[in-house]
Amino acid sequence: MTAENSGLGRLKNRLAQISDLESAAAVLSWDQQTYMPPGGAAGRAEQLATLARMSHELFTAGGTYSLIEQAAGEIGGVDADTDDAALLRVTYRDFDRAVKLPAELVAELARTRTLAQEAWTKARAANDYPAFAPWLEKLIELTRRTAECWGYQDRLYDALVEGYEPGTTTAQVAAMYADLKPGLVSLVQAIVERGRPIDDAVLHREYPVPRQREFSERLVRDLGYDFERGRQDDTTHPFCTTFSVGDVRITTRFDPRFLSQGLLASVHEAGHAIYEQGSPAELDRTPLRGGASMGVHESQSRLWENLVGRSRPFWQHFFPLLRETFPEALADSSADAFVRALCKVTPSLIRVEADEVTYNLHVLLRFELENDLLEGRLSVADAPAAWNAKMQEYLGLTPPTDAEGILQDIHWSIGIMGYFPTYSIGNLLAAQLWEAATGEIPEIPAQLSRGEFAPLLGWLREKIHRHGRKYLPNELIERATGKPLQSGPFLRYLTGKYTEIYGL
Amino acid sequence: MTAENSGLGRLKNRLAQISDLESAAAVLSWDQQTYMPPGGAAGRAEQLATLARMSHELFTAGGTYSLIEQAAGEIGGVDADTDDAALLRVTYRDFDRAVKLPAELVAELARTRTLAQEAWTKARAANDYPAFAPWLEKLIELTRRTAECWGYQDRLYDALVEGYEPGTTTAQVAAMYADLKPGLVSLVQAIVERGRPIDDAVLHREYPVPRQREFSERLVRDLGYDFERGRQDDTTHPFCTTFSVGDVRITTRFDPRFLSQGLLASVHEAGHAIYEQGSPAELDRTPLRGGASMGVHESQSRLWENLVGRSRPFWQHFFPLLRETFPEALADSSADAFVRALCKVTPSLIRVEADEVTYNLHVLLRFELENDLLEGRLSVADAPAAWNAKMQEYLGLTPPTDAEGILQDIHWSIGIMGYFPTYSIGNLLAAQLWEAATGEIPEIPAQLSRGEFAPLLGWLREKIHRHGRKYLPNELIERATGKPLQSGPFLRYLTGKYTEIYGL
Repeated sequence: MTAENSGLGRLKNRLAQISDLESAAAVLSWDQQTYMPPGGAAGRAEQLATLARMSHELFTAGGTYSLIEQAAGEIGGVDADTDDAALLRVTYRDFDRAVKLPAELVAELARTRTLAQEAWTKARAANDYPAFAPWLEKLIELTRRTAECWGYQDRLYDALVEGYEPGTTTAQVAAMYADLKPGLVSLVQAIVERGRPIDDAVLHREYPVPRQREFSERLVRDLGYDFERGRQDDTTHPFCTTFSVGDVRITTRFDPRFLSQGLLASVHEAGHAIYEQGSPAELDRTPLRGGASMGVHESQSRLWENLVGRSRPFWQHFFPLLRETFPEALADSSADAFVRALCKVTPSLIRVEADEVTYNLHVLLRFELENDLLEGRLSVADAPAAWNAKMQEYLGLTPPTDAEGILQDIHWSIGIMGYFPTYSIGNLLAAQLWEAATGEIPEIPAQLSRGEFAPLLGWLREKIHRHGRKYLPNELIERATGKPLQSGPFLRYLTGKYTEIYGL
Repeated sequence: MTAENSGLGRLKNRLAQISDLESAAAVLSWDQQTYMPPGGAAGRAEQLATLARMSHELFTAGGTYSLIEQAAGEIGGVDADTDDAALLRVTYRDFDRAVKLPAELVAELARTRTLAQEAWTKARAANDYPAFAPWLEKLIELTRRTAECWGYQDRLYDALVEGYEPGTTTAQVAAMYADLKPGLVSLVQAIVERGRPIDDAVLHREYPVPRQREFSERLVRDLGYDFERGRQDDTTHPFCTTFSVGDVRITTRFDPRFLSQGLLASVHEAGHAIYEQGSPAELDRTPLRGGASMGVHESQSRLWENLVGRSRPFWQHFFPLLRETFPEALADSSADAFVRALCKVTPSLIRVEADEVTYNLHVLLRFELENDLLEGRLSVADAPAAWNAKMQEYLGLTPPTDAEGILQDIHWSIGIMGYFPTYSIGNLLAAQLWEAATGEIPEIPAQLSRGEFAPLLGWLREKIHRHGRKYLPNELIERATGKPLQSGPFLRYLTGKYTEIYGL
């Protein structure tokens, strides 16, 4: 136990209050996206702005820095591999970023995000990009101001990426894509040239939503998502949110004519949530609870969604139950045919519905566009055309509407820029972790085919989840896999899997 | 517009932030009672404790009192009949109570309430009073400490009542019951002696919950509840909660074999919500938003629930639609028979299901018991027996289980004592307002029978709602009805209505 009156004790107490304010804000945001009536938007914006300002003020208030220093003295420096030393390292890193932002900018961002999100929701529904454009303009300007406050060496974008993926630069992201792109492109080419299109009509039959909901809950419960400490609701854009180790919620989006969208969104978000639920209870109300970075977080959701949820062993186990649930739609299908449908590779408009092979091209597009917007090479007015041009270039498609183009993602509407590359990092890391896990436990695929998910979950708990935010992403990846992040495992995984599926 | 840098401007800014924190806490409480998974309880208790402590600290921080004084100087005193003067009067009244409570007591109360409520929920489900007793003990002790901090002239209970019904004493409440009891008792006796029991079997047929939900939404929408600025969810104990003028929510509880419970709970809570939605937008984020007192609030819910929702004109309009909604259950019934069933007078165990005539005896019992508990004449261990003895004395019934006795209400589980009498005040005032409204607009009953609720709503908006918390309850009642609160209208209303129904 930490003495209450020590520097460390007082710092922990302050951090716990900040955590409470942030959790409250998370509840308000969750409510805004699930159940809030339209009339609540203006008041909610004020409430979120106040919570953001107060937690920011409490964190950056006089005293926090000296408490960190005092606590570091009490525990003999911050280099030890202990929870307390990690707490101080992480807190200092967060403090350094937070203290550079004026409270008014934080509050204005929070308020603008809330209103912009409402505007985006309406604009997307009405396919009315011009109605959203002023909000995007304002958010870009606020994001630029934020990046300038944080500072950067080479690129404005560096300051943003650092917040999601500590220790990673824009140049490294660009290099990752340069490394990845040739392999992806040649794989897509090989698939296209093979000329053996997969029929995924089975996914687009009638799947009544209540039964989809029930089945998805069964799925994610079996994988390890604990409903005693969570729940699943419906939102336009699926997400996972944490209020405490005991309350980690997911949302999903069911379409009665598109089975895999909802099911795999549930599995994806459950992957995030299982990570969050795996934080040790003693890290609750501290900055060490949660994930090491957004990329590491995404590795968990992608691993469960793609390496497990789009695998043959997984559906060997679950397909019979799925067919019991939807006897009319699946009477003439088989586990193998179903998995093939789930793994259909085809250029498409919507990122969250993209296949594993083309997905990273969607993200690359966003990475490039948000850099261009932030660094002034592209205007908000021209952005839809630029989006469409890149879609044509990378995927051979032009979105017929902005709702299916630039308006599709929630991220920019809530001022999140610099985040998209973490999806690709997550894809790479998922494959790297899978290679390491199956290297140590070769029975994992056979276990999946029997519905035994505990060994894989146990490996992830041990290597990743139990550490919360204690380690930097690169440290954590090296500890778990013995190597830094690499594109090899991902390309090997894709090539192996799709060579078989497409008979390349 | 108030200048931002004036004392009044700075006070308003501070009050707006406090309002935001309180709204955030209200969202967290709503979530706790509607959707929170069980694992969230511990974290939620901490979050609510932190929000309560921070809003308390912000309100009682150095500077608030001098801002009130400075603002009073700027507007030339606090006696004028203006929003600003009322704001200062109400703020000073709140400040005086808040500043007397140490922040730690406020936080401990908030934390204990959250945990005690979880314990109560389980204890009620398991009919296990001893499991709840330690929490009740602790809440009583905290409530006593709270009352001592506030101070009182005659009775500890005075300090509590003042918080819900400013300007009302325990002695006045006791006098009200003394005034009310003989009339109630003789009416109950007359009904019993008449020996003409009403058959309310029609209320206990099969009423599928989804259709009840739909019908209840139609009902409250027609009365004037705005779903663009609200929503209805399910909870164990129905309530109304306000996050902003644009987001006022209600909850209800449907039973597939008890139609009136859910429908009238919806109407009741909508009565509260319509009052809250009637606060002028410019009072949002100020202490003037909302209701003058709990009694005045309850007058609105009771008026819609009882004087409207249990009246013949109301069901002349709605019964045909109700029968369309539930053709199987209501094929052989009529509007008249349905209203008679809704107005059945019979001693019963559960307060929220009690009829209008016996209801105030349920409340009297709680008023007496919570006084005895707080003033040490009754121990927590003996409380169930005392409850049951009084039930026998007042209503001739002994609860077979504590779940149907002392564990039935949520109030004590969240540390709310001194509140119950406001239900009786609400009953009296509802009748007094009804007498005044129908005196001015004699067509109201005929309008109700045509589904025209706007004239009655308009009268309430004008006389009550638009004033928010600007006036003390007594001032408001006198302004609206020309008289102080009286028991005459309520006894006249009951006697007239039940003389007809029971053919006395």
